Amino acid sequence: MKIGIVGSAMVAQILGKKLAELGHEIMISSRDVNKDKGYFPSALIWADQMKKEGFNAYAGSFSDAAQFGEVILNCTNGAHSIEALEKAGEQYLSNKILIDIANPLDFSRDVVSLTVSNTDSLGERIQRRFPKSRVIKALNTVNAEIMVNPHLLDGSHDLFICGNDAEAKKWVREELLQNCLGWEYIIDLGDIKASRMQEMYLPLWVRLYDIFNSAHFNIHVVRKSNVD
Amino acid sequence: MKIGIVGSAMVAQILGKKLAELGHEIMISSRDVNKDKGYFPSALIWADQMKKEGFNAYAGSFSDAAQFGEVILNCTNGAHSIEALEKAGEQYLSNKILIDIANPLDFSRDVVSLTVSNTDSLGERIQRRFPKSRVIKALNTVNAEIMVNPHLLDGSHDLFICGNDAEAKKWVREELLQNCLGWEYIIDLGDIKASRMQEMYLPLWVRLYDIFNSAHFNIHVVRKSNVD
Repeated sequence: MKIGIVGSAMVAQILGKKLAELGHEIMISSRDVNKDKGYFPSALIWADQMKKEGFNAYAGSFSDAAQFGEVILNCTNGAHSIEALEKAGEQYLSNKILIDIANPLDFSRDVVSLTVSNTDSLGERIQRRFPKSRVIKALNTVNAEIMVNPHLLDGSHDLFICGNDAEAKKWVREELLQNCLGWEYIIDLGDIKASRMQEMYLPLWVRLYDIFNSAHFNIHVVRKSNVD
Repeated sequence: MKIGIVGSAMVAQILGKKLAELGHEIMISSRDVNKDKGYFPSALIWADQMKKEGFNAYAGSFSDAAQFGEVILNCTNGAHSIEALEKAGEQYLSNKILIDIANPLDFSRDVVSLTVSNTDSLGERIQRRFPKSRVIKALNTVNAEIMVNPHLLDGSHDLFICGNDAEAKKWVREELLQNCLGWEYIIDLGDIKASRMQEMYLPLWVRLYDIFNSAHFNIHVVRKSNVD
């Protein structure tokens, strides 16, 4: 399958590599494919390295990736996701599954906060702005290395998913998360408004990351064995 | 020890009973000690029942409870906590450990929200309003029956705690949570600003409650065994 990734930083590169290894054709994308992404190489260097390793991997503009993908992943910085997806082109995102992995994090204050929260969320904003896209919020509550390798952690742990389109959600859950990425435990939180819950967990995630000095953790919802 | 509980609803009654059973003297409190609390009896009926069972349990005004307690628990509805604590009397709360168990939940919309969040929190507001109190945020992320009986759930699961006063936090953690209530896994999130993280988890908690149709769950933070 052709997967278009809007974004080219850590999440895009790690998720893109894993999906390419599984046989998918991947295009990551950037405003500037020549620009380094912090500790990660530019989109173009990433794609060149991947091609040398024999994978079908490409780099392009946001619009290139949106046109290329049968399924689209939003792996941009949440503060700029709407703008990036607008650049990608509403017409190329329509009628496609659009998986929103981004978080609207704001690190400009002394304590992390969200640029949208509580009575709205990034996932909802994307669905409203692109009403013909089938927006599914998933994978935003874990680090990229956990996204592509949930068995890195010891014991059961859960992924959350939400979205308005039941068929799209089923596909993302079963094909992408379970079959491709190996997620065993997935909790369907309902419609896209549950993006609020998935995103409002992030400040706790960031605090735990600071405490552990590691992004290699996730939460498991523990219940009674004789569920009441 | 004499424990004053501001509030008299489910959390106050369940937590008060458990602490009374452990030998503490408890006063719960209400604007109107004769008023039923939903499925739970009035503060006065609760105290009468408890006395018949041989416990040192009382009902009074918010101010009575604040004067009575060597340690104070805020078990009010988070939307009205500041007002209730003001009625309790700042002078009676000063220099005492004040454990904030409340959540600023707003159920007036179609989806649960918080009356304060993201760049502030109830825990911080209480600490600012009562600067001489030693405010510790804890127990707000679990149902009352889990608070007093963490072993009700199968497997490890975590409680979060935060506050500015290290000595007060140590006492709450070791004496109240570990020794009295039996909590094994407690994660110290740092200063009182982490109340934001503990409270912003609540919308996810409420959604999980709706899905499970049960409040008997909690989260466990799962890590690698060889922690990096």
